[in-house]
Amino acid sequence: MNFYGSMEAAWQRAGSLLCVGLDPDPSRLPAHLAARPDAVFAFCRAIVDATAPFACAFKPQIAYFAAARAEEQLETLIAHIHREHPGKPVILDAKRGDIGATAEQYAREAFERYRADAVTVNPYMGFDSIEPWLAWRDRGVFLLCRTSNPGGSDLQSLDVGGERLFERVARLAAGPWNGSGQLGLVVGATFPEELARVRAIVGPMPLLVPGIGAQGGDIEATVRAGGPRMIVNSSRAILYAGAGEDFAEAAAAAAQATREALREALARP
Amino acid sequence: MNFYGSMEAAWQRAGSLLCVGLDPDPSRLPAHLAARPDAVFAFCRAIVDATAPFACAFKPQIAYFAAARAEEQLETLIAHIHREHPGKPVILDAKRGDIGATAEQYAREAFERYRADAVTVNPYMGFDSIEPWLAWRDRGVFLLCRTSNPGGSDLQSLDVGGERLFERVARLAAGPWNGSGQLGLVVGATFPEELARVRAIVGPMPLLVPGIGAQGGDIEATVRAGGPRMIVNSSRAILYAGAGEDFAEAAAAAAQATREALREALARP
Repeated sequence: MNFYGSMEAAWQRAGSLLCVGLDPDPSRLPAHLAARPDAVFAFCRAIVDATAPFACAFKPQIAYFAAARAEEQLETLIAHIHREHPGKPVILDAKRGDIGATAEQYAREAFERYRADAVTVNPYMGFDSIEPWLAWRDRGVFLLCRTSNPGGSDLQSLDVGGERLFERVARLAAGPWNGSGQLGLVVGATFPEELARVRAIVGPMPLLVPGIGAQGGDIEATVRAGGPRMIVNSSRAILYAGAGEDFAEAAAAAAQATREALREALARP
Repeated sequence: MNFYGSMEAAWQRAGSLLCVGLDPDPSRLPAHLAARPDAVFAFCRAIVDATAPFACAFKPQIAYFAAARAEEQLETLIAHIHREHPGKPVILDAKRGDIGATAEQYAREAFERYRADAVTVNPYMGFDSIEPWLAWRDRGVFLLCRTSNPGGSDLQSLDVGGERLFERVARLAAGPWNGSGQLGLVVGATFPEELARVRAIVGPMPLLVPGIGAQGGDIEATVRAGGPRMIVNSSRAILYAGAGEDFAEAAAAAAQATREALREALARP
């Protein structure tokens, strides 16, 4: 099955647009776990197992694992998700981007070593930096389009001849760059009008939407702008919903509440 | 000393603009090393020790180490360079780019874990994605500006209102974004006219210039366009100059020849 098919099945099965982002900040791990040598894995595994009923996908952010020398824990975590929660795609948030021969190595890192189902990639270097990822036909590639940070506007909102740079990226990603049907886009929830604009350009393409929760994006406005084919990510608001020994239960409650809020927003006429 | 100062001293001491890129492709390691568990480190260390007399800096490409599960070998390699070849800056080619909290983790990965002197960063997400790197005041940050691959033109050459996107990046990097004086730019050698244009915009800022050697960039045209304040990278043409047990001698000869060609081009009126 290709990634669009896997994502379709995951949305259906989970009845949820929520993606749980796994950003294990070492300074915010619960005290009773922090001293364990596998603290990062233990924390993320507990979050995954508690929130899986409410999530359509998981998104580990590789920077947190790399800064903590926890690459092996990331491998173990993704293997755990595949084994215990089959049918929940793992999107490795790595925002890589490099030329051909090097992009091949990054693709091997994400798809072979970590066995991710999809990855985030930066489009600044153009299509020949994206192509090597597409050789993995059953995997997905989410290109950064309109990111959720305020500074995202610095370049992405520049007018490139009647449209903004992020609109051009959306048009390329939905058209000439997507011959193999593996691309999605990253569009922040913090700018609902721009999310709506991207949706209008790309049609039913899956959108990975960070920025709700801690970053302040509004669920109702996000769903109105982006429709049902979204993977709506929340990281900190779920991971750190509780800080004590009951952190996993608190995370599950936060995930469930977010799923419900997304469902209600979708059901509203 | 800040990174500009370190780079200035490195250029002077080495009498060379050459940076040796460390892209250890597992399929191209010499046969007598390939079976060693530390093959990646052993290969790179031999290249470093043989080419150091001709180089002003080293640039490990992290993708090759990550795909090979060789993060520890990369740590050991950079520690080796700092210990055995002090005063040769290590530029970690990682092309990271993410929002604030995550960028902090990437900066810890590059600067704290790997002890790199400088790093390459993708500017697509704007200044607030660059700022966290600048908290490390003695380190340098090379922003992708005009990359050496053909597809680099897809976005970088778009007209953003009287100038191209890469020119805008250059103008931002030389002006409002560079309050702390830590930024450099990555500009490919494969487009000498565009390199000259960037040089005209940014003045004496250090430019990291990949694309000579295997990628076909012309040394003479590069030096004419970019002047002396360049870190001119060559990877494959040096690393794989020989394939046998004498690979390090072959790499040294290739590095020396490249240094001489750069010197001669600089001396030409």
